[in-house]
Amino acid sequence: MNKIAVNASKGYDVHIGSHLLPNIGSYIQQMHSCCTVAIISDSNVWPLYGECVTKSLTGTGYKVIHYVIPAGEESKNPQQYMAILNFLAENALTRSDLLVALGGGVVGDITGFTAATYLRGISYIQIPTSLLAMVDSSVGGKTAIDLPSGKNLVGAFYQPDIVLCDISVLETLPKPIFIDGCAEVIKYGVLFDAELFSHLETHGLSFDREYVISRCVALKADVVCADEFDKGLRQQLNLGHTIGHSIEKYSNYTVTHGQAVAIGMAIIAKCSANSGLCDQDVYASILDLLHKFSLPADCAFSAMQIADGALSDKKRLGDTIHLVLPRSIGNCFLYPISVNDLTSFIEKGK
Amino acid sequence: MNKIAVNASKGYDVHIGSHLLPNIGSYIQQMHSCCTVAIISDSNVWPLYGECVTKSLTGTGYKVIHYVIPAGEESKNPQQYMAILNFLAENALTRSDLLVALGGGVVGDITGFTAATYLRGISYIQIPTSLLAMVDSSVGGKTAIDLPSGKNLVGAFYQPDIVLCDISVLETLPKPIFIDGCAEVIKYGVLFDAELFSHLETHGLSFDREYVISRCVALKADVVCADEFDKGLRQQLNLGHTIGHSIEKYSNYTVTHGQAVAIGMAIIAKCSANSGLCDQDVYASILDLLHKFSLPADCAFSAMQIADGALSDKKRLGDTIHLVLPRSIGNCFLYPISVNDLTSFIEKGK
Repeated sequence: MNKIAVNASKGYDVHIGSHLLPNIGSYIQQMHSCCTVAIISDSNVWPLYGECVTKSLTGTGYKVIHYVIPAGEESKNPQQYMAILNFLAENALTRSDLLVALGGGVVGDITGFTAATYLRGISYIQIPTSLLAMVDSSVGGKTAIDLPSGKNLVGAFYQPDIVLCDISVLETLPKPIFIDGCAEVIKYGVLFDAELFSHLETHGLSFDREYVISRCVALKADVVCADEFDKGLRQQLNLGHTIGHSIEKYSNYTVTHGQAVAIGMAIIAKCSANSGLCDQDVYASILDLLHKFSLPADCAFSAMQIADGALSDKKRLGDTIHLVLPRSIGNCFLYPISVNDLTSFIEKGK
Repeated sequence: MNKIAVNASKGYDVHIGSHLLPNIGSYIQQMHSCCTVAIISDSNVWPLYGECVTKSLTGTGYKVIHYVIPAGEESKNPQQYMAILNFLAENALTRSDLLVALGGGVVGDITGFTAATYLRGISYIQIPTSLLAMVDSSVGGKTAIDLPSGKNLVGAFYQPDIVLCDISVLETLPKPIFIDGCAEVIKYGVLFDAELFSHLETHGLSFDREYVISRCVALKADVVCADEFDKGLRQQLNLGHTIGHSIEKYSNYTVTHGQAVAIGMAIIAKCSANSGLCDQDVYASILDLLHKFSLPADCAFSAMQIADGALSDKKRLGDTIHLVLPRSIGNCFLYPISVNDLTSFIEKGK
């Protein structure tokens, strides 16, 4: 078992190991005395792990209630957010009670935003059940919901009390969803860690779960602590995301987040190589690894469509957009570009 | 003109003086370079001051857009919140843009919450146009919307960049709305400041606007700085509010906030006096001053109804509720009470 400390404005630990879920009650007990725990989960995860988590919590003396949202990105919407808030209010949850996000990134994001805003903030715990959520959304305190005009346009920076990554649950994760998370794992290699990238090249889908997830969490924790409120450094984590979010949106979310990030990384690496900002073999290595993980590297949308979607991205500051480009494997940089030049730049990656 | 510094986690100034609105552009210019300013206002205030504020802002180089909500507490709802968010997203506001709340407490609360959550937080400015908003809701960073099951159940702590209290606008404020704000002014006297209370006793509705508003803001700023996130001390500001919120809710908001706070203060002072926790003349002074300001001191709801509504208040921690009781004029204290004893305690004030 690994434990990684996140030293944000509020410090907390991320635990990574096997068979954590049956003991969740004892983890929470160390931090919170008896209260009501509201578990928010989705229609895929709840049938698998709801009973186990509830049993552990009631066994340690908590009153447990739960709210299950339909599985899928479409649930990260204002209506579901309000439905959860009303559920908490109708059950009279107070500031001494607790939310638990049991699920993937959608559940984690909407639960985190609910926790940030219900009664102006109550405690919450992340139990990510997808690889993507373990290495990305559950750590760092970024919470959000989507608006009709864009993804993650409403949210808050709000840190959890603890994050429990039970790698045993990855065994029940459908393979396409697992692969989806691998895009984000590869991103950490490209961004910060040639050794991690090399481990993935060697082992492919059989990579060491505990080592890789712990490494990704530690890398993310470093960035989050240096830039909790996304003022600069943290933008590096958006490698592949500016283009990725645009593709997700244009596809009406039929392209998954991981696929979109993979395509975004491939396009941006090709842009970088074709602009002479990195070697062609950097692009080639990224492309090879994406193929090894059966991840896509291109899409049917035009450069103009992608650029158009990227301009509604919240990372934009006035007339400049900041792209993250690879310089080499394990070393990326922020590249400011005028909104007027974005289409022609993306053309180089298509 | 007075300027009061609020030294919260983010410091900012509250300016109190006459004829500030025509110069709003120059105030903002000192802090924000050219960007889009989105003014959120309501159907009462916008026709009176929208043009003046827009003119000052465009005159100093800002692009101005505006969104007007129907006047009234009913607008502080999830649907209006989402409508404003969609308006900002459709106008592609970025993190370098700015929101301005031009209106009373409802506009300030919903705009502040929108600013706290749009793109995970953008800057905003409070221009309170009611007495209530000037002395209360515009200072301290508490933002919120209502849920069907209760007032202010969703929100965030989020400080503005500046607060501009233009006392000239109070001249157009309808008298009942002005009187409504006086309940909150009287509250500051009861809580912290016998001299302020005495000034109100002497001058009634003709009190010195700049002195009184500045004093209330300074008192609130002290409390906010000592307890920004409402962990204890700030609960004192809820004198009359636990009962007041319950009355507002039961009346379906036909009893205004100020009236409800006045009734709440009267009831709680009577409870305090009849329980031997303060002298009867403390209650009598409060009652006299409320009468002098034509504010109500009782309501048709039963103690049981009031207690029931108070239990859904977010101040509740588990089975204990903290009431604010006067000990003398200018000196109050927190009084923890079991939820089971609340009805019989309130009976003493009916």
